[in-house]
Amino acid sequence: MAGRALESGLWSCAPVQIRDFAADRHRTVDDTPAGGGAGMVLKADVLAAAVDHAAAEHPGLPILAMTPRGKPITQARVRDLAAGPGAIILCGRFEGFDERIFDARPIEQVSMADIVLSGGEMAALLLLDACIRLLPGVMGAASSGDDESFENGLIEYPHYTRPVTWEGRTIPEVLRSGDHAKIAAWRKQRAEEDTRLRRPDLWERHVDARDRPASGAQRREKDKRP
Amino acid sequence: MAGRALESGLWSCAPVQIRDFAADRHRTVDDTPAGGGAGMVLKADVLAAAVDHAAAEHPGLPILAMTPRGKPITQARVRDLAAGPGAIILCGRFEGFDERIFDARPIEQVSMADIVLSGGEMAALLLLDACIRLLPGVMGAASSGDDESFENGLIEYPHYTRPVTWEGRTIPEVLRSGDHAKIAAWRKQRAEEDTRLRRPDLWERHVDARDRPASGAQRREKDKRP
Repeated sequence: MAGRALESGLWSCAPVQIRDFAADRHRTVDDTPAGGGAGMVLKADVLAAAVDHAAAEHPGLPILAMTPRGKPITQARVRDLAAGPGAIILCGRFEGFDERIFDARPIEQVSMADIVLSGGEMAALLLLDACIRLLPGVMGAASSGDDESFENGLIEYPHYTRPVTWEGRTIPEVLRSGDHAKIAAWRKQRAEEDTRLRRPDLWERHVDARDRPASGAQRREKDKRP
Repeated sequence: MAGRALESGLWSCAPVQIRDFAADRHRTVDDTPAGGGAGMVLKADVLAAAVDHAAAEHPGLPILAMTPRGKPITQARVRDLAAGPGAIILCGRFEGFDERIFDARPIEQVSMADIVLSGGEMAALLLLDACIRLLPGVMGAASSGDDESFENGLIEYPHYTRPVTWEGRTIPEVLRSGDHAKIAAWRKQRAEEDTRLRRPDLWERHVDARDRPASGAQRREKDKRP
């Protein structure tokens, strides 16, 4: 999908090789960690040169770095990025980045998951995929990008499709009723119930946001409640 | 890294094409969602045939499915999987799986991040990468896989490397002291402080686990505290 969209010119990508910004003839991008320890650390001076180059080529874009020390990515941030002018994404290798790059440049640290990867490129691929599918023209009429997943900070309700009965298990009757209001109510209830059971972290944030009279949109949503 | 390890025979991969298990001559794997809505849902009967085939070929392996309705992946689960006999990973496309597959087969639902992807394959790639780097023989002597990231459920302390001073910013003095005990204490303190500030969710769980006298390991850790 992302590949076809790239061929259609719906998005583009300009990779920057950090090694091209190394100052010495060995093209050194990393060095041993201050204080000792395993692995290598990407040098702040080389990173800054690469970031400055990308920012000069593409002025005004937000600069993100994929790192397990970052803020967990959310679908809301994905939507913002997809609606924006693009992004510069810094991908690390080895033990990580020299921390001073984050003091010296306006870089948003983003974490994909609480796991350790061999590099940030794959995390960046997921971020790209999530953004690209939301770009106008990328998804067909069959799917609108108007997903229920993480809408209001909830996980999505469960899905079913034919056969109606499979291995003795039947699709919930309400979904076969044709009653759109009842179906919507069932889906909302299942999204809430499953979020509460499976993702107490998301549920807590959802309840906080729901019960706090904050933005106009949230207040309107709240006013609809009995 | 994963590619080199594959060539060296340190791990292997046997892709299964779900479409090969479709029963009709059009090789249909999906159908419209019961109750209406955008997108298509992967059929439980086809999924079950594919999963049963993989489980028969590779008996005893845990079966995982990548889905945003799943339990968030953790480094602890990655370590378990890397130490285990392998895994069957079910990757979805379209709107998702017919929920009955999870009632009918012992499948662990795993979420990579709270974002919507075009498919589960990329999330599976990240899971593979995180596991493969921990396999014996994959990483060189330079890095041991014995990472500090998410150890004790904390994010890792920040890293620094030469030059000592860059753009007026100097590497914290303690890291240049050569005093290993002081360096370890500083790193522990920074890992705790940054987790508390950046990831209150992880910090809360860390404090809960630390303060709860549970397993022997946790009790020993607790006993070391003043």
